[in-house]
Amino acid sequence: MTKTAAIIGGGVIGGGWAARFALMGWDVRIFDPDPEAERKMGEVMRNAERALPMLYDTALPERGRISFHAELADAVQGAIWIQESVPERLDLKLKVYQSLQACCLPDAVIASSTSGFKPSEIQDGAARPEQILVAHPFNPVYLLPLAELVPSPRNTPEVIDKAKTILTEIGMFPLHVRAEIDAHIADRFLEAVWREALWLVKDGIATTEEIDNAIRYGFGLRWAQMGLFETYRVAGGEAGMRHFMAQFGPCLSWPWTKLMDVPEFTDELVDLIADQSDAQSGAFTIRELEAKRDMNLVAMLRALKGREEAAGALLRSHERGLRFDPDGVPMVTQRRVVPIDWTDMNGHMNEGRYGQVFSDAAEVLMAAVGADEAYVAAGNSYFTVETTVKYLMETHAGEAIRVDSRVTLGDGKKLRVFHEMRREADNELLASCDQFMLHVSLETRRSCPPLPHVQAAVEALAARHKES
Amino acid sequence: MTKTAAIIGGGVIGGGWAARFALMGWDVRIFDPDPEAERKMGEVMRNAERALPMLYDTALPERGRISFHAELADAVQGAIWIQESVPERLDLKLKVYQSLQACCLPDAVIASSTSGFKPSEIQDGAARPEQILVAHPFNPVYLLPLAELVPSPRNTPEVIDKAKTILTEIGMFPLHVRAEIDAHIADRFLEAVWREALWLVKDGIATTEEIDNAIRYGFGLRWAQMGLFETYRVAGGEAGMRHFMAQFGPCLSWPWTKLMDVPEFTDELVDLIADQSDAQSGAFTIRELEAKRDMNLVAMLRALKGREEAAGALLRSHERGLRFDPDGVPMVTQRRVVPIDWTDMNGHMNEGRYGQVFSDAAEVLMAAVGADEAYVAAGNSYFTVETTVKYLMETHAGEAIRVDSRVTLGDGKKLRVFHEMRREADNELLASCDQFMLHVSLETRRSCPPLPHVQAAVEALAARHKES
Repeated sequence: MTKTAAIIGGGVIGGGWAARFALMGWDVRIFDPDPEAERKMGEVMRNAERALPMLYDTALPERGRISFHAELADAVQGAIWIQESVPERLDLKLKVYQSLQACCLPDAVIASSTSGFKPSEIQDGAARPEQILVAHPFNPVYLLPLAELVPSPRNTPEVIDKAKTILTEIGMFPLHVRAEIDAHIADRFLEAVWREALWLVKDGIATTEEIDNAIRYGFGLRWAQMGLFETYRVAGGEAGMRHFMAQFGPCLSWPWTKLMDVPEFTDELVDLIADQSDAQSGAFTIRELEAKRDMNLVAMLRALKGREEAAGALLRSHERGLRFDPDGVPMVTQRRVVPIDWTDMNGHMNEGRYGQVFSDAAEVLMAAVGADEAYVAAGNSYFTVETTVKYLMETHAGEAIRVDSRVTLGDGKKLRVFHEMRREADNELLASCDQFMLHVSLETRRSCPPLPHVQAAVEALAARHKES
Repeated sequence: MTKTAAIIGGGVIGGGWAARFALMGWDVRIFDPDPEAERKMGEVMRNAERALPMLYDTALPERGRISFHAELADAVQGAIWIQESVPERLDLKLKVYQSLQACCLPDAVIASSTSGFKPSEIQDGAARPEQILVAHPFNPVYLLPLAELVPSPRNTPEVIDKAKTILTEIGMFPLHVRAEIDAHIADRFLEAVWREALWLVKDGIATTEEIDNAIRYGFGLRWAQMGLFETYRVAGGEAGMRHFMAQFGPCLSWPWTKLMDVPEFTDELVDLIADQSDAQSGAFTIRELEAKRDMNLVAMLRALKGREEAAGALLRSHERGLRFDPDGVPMVTQRRVVPIDWTDMNGHMNEGRYGQVFSDAAEVLMAAVGADEAYVAAGNSYFTVETTVKYLMETHAGEAIRVDSRVTLGDGKKLRVFHEMRREADNELLASCDQFMLHVSLETRRSCPPLPHVQAAVEALAARHKES
């Protein structure tokens, strides 16, 4: 049976929760007195329905129904999860819980999105405090998996388990925060960084843009895959976490931040951290962790490169300067190594990526005959109509490969190319591709003859490739 | 002519610089009195030569030569870039510069990897202070683009420009830090987070692993692509940066971190930040920034999913629970939407990704006949030998697609499948694929008959698909 969630308070956070629940197949009932609530929710939903399904390589459950309700009692009807995301005022939250508990299911989970309040604060004076806890998400809620799940001693293990199960079911990672504390865990770091950033801007050291670049081109990429401690464990190298701490421990008393209320750096603290780090990452050697880190970074950087965003835009621009001239008969159209993100569960380059190599090869050949990025931007291109790929040998991440391409037909709007992909190390033929393309107008999306200079270059190339 | 860099002090950082220069075609001359230097450098180089070339979809320049030198004077010979990465002791660094300047080119750039010292500190007493500045990199140096370039007033614009040019040439992003400050910019944030993290561990709030998860499943992913201020600008929604600051400004006086030395939250500070944020991101609307952020996150999360690491491991595990049963005649083997990372410069799904969809479809079909992940793990699989893909219509990011697959031959080790990929919205045929596979032993990598239960299932499926 379809499950129901109630969303109390829309906005960016409430809307994000609503979208995640609905796209995971839950019916969602929304209460938000803001007259703009439905419009705002619609905007969040449009973002979410575009982005979230892209994460999955399979179908999501059928989308649940989203409804808006003028009365709180109506909104929580049948809801087994009630997410409160009203403004960060304790008095307001307490009033909402009082009203909620008068009409909701007695065993529903009531979760607060609060960034700062502790669960025992928001349970204060509640009829059934055990029903209420904190589930603090991160924007955009429909993409980021983290939800800090913070109970107080008044929550039963059953409620906590139920909350974990439901959050996991909708694709989130419930981080069980075992001790109540203002701002939980993640926001404490955000607040520390925010405070330091305000100092830097105020003191004229850096602009907001310089600060963002200092983050996203460096440690932001590290933290997206390993976090703080595991990153430092790897940085410590063979000597490990204790070595790292010995090296950077003294900085605690240096003016490396304006935030100077530091903990005392004792042997006990070093042991505590080193032991926890062993428990966390000790199953892997430093070499293994380095390889994990590097391959994660390669995959993420390549993802950003595909988008031409952030560090990926830097890579793309650097690569433009490296572009080799395709040359020879047949024309060498690719020289590269197989990146980690091209391999599959068989441990070798996925067959789809062969298609990509040949597609990239065709793009280089196109550029060589004048059908380059500017030509495409001006509204013309070649589209592939048919390819036949023969897979002859396996290839693996890190291997250097080359593609030799030969024009076998260049007649009007028709372009046919035969590609051979070889391993550079021993020149073994790995795969071949017979690719048939048609020249198209990007405006009409229909075939049409190429512009004369491209036509002439294609014919010349076809003639050269025929002679040899 | 090949350019030369000298690396003074190996280790993880010096080694990372050496690897980046060498892989970008520079000759690299290393001075490091550590008897283990050559072995350590070899290990960094092995990591780097595997990872760095994977970032590029083209060939890198021919690798430069790496040599080790027992004498400083020998190491710096001909070097136009000298990178100092000796331990963080000012007296040691000053001694090194004195020796360096007695023998290096007078117009070489001498750059220090120092995390903490200001350029005017390390220039102190130098024969040619204008030659020395800070270029602070981030580990792993061969993958992360950020280098904080920190000059003092004693450096000439020419030296700064030259340093920027060279760093850009080797694929880095020189962040020009305009004002000297202890720990530059990025490490101030790292230090603030480190201090807060020490408190949390010491106070028993969270373990190192919980802290890492709080980072990598949430804001770490945001910061890998946008940094702090642009992320908050988006979070502020339509009302923008001033609204965000009004909302979270008061937290500065709350105990959300133990680091309480906060700047005064004045109107001037709000204006300063809001104006800088406008200058940085004002060319885009909030909707555009949201879309950028979401598509970047999708692409990075999918990259991590391919690796089954960090947030990608969570996604993979969630997806396993969503797996639909392939069913029907022909068998529905894929239902999904086209993700953003599958599109190319023509604005549509790249032809290589058609191959991937059909490969994924074949994997589902294989699992349906018993050749599932466990079967592959036990040493058997089907490898594709030949595919012919016909591209009939374009498809775009966000569109829902379906693949119908029909076994056209299931005879011993031979398996042939005909796939049709359709757009769900209107059932239009987008592409077809005739795929010929052979059953292989993953041990011998040669063809062999499938195990009997798979064989029987393939034959039964072939018979069903023939009848209909």
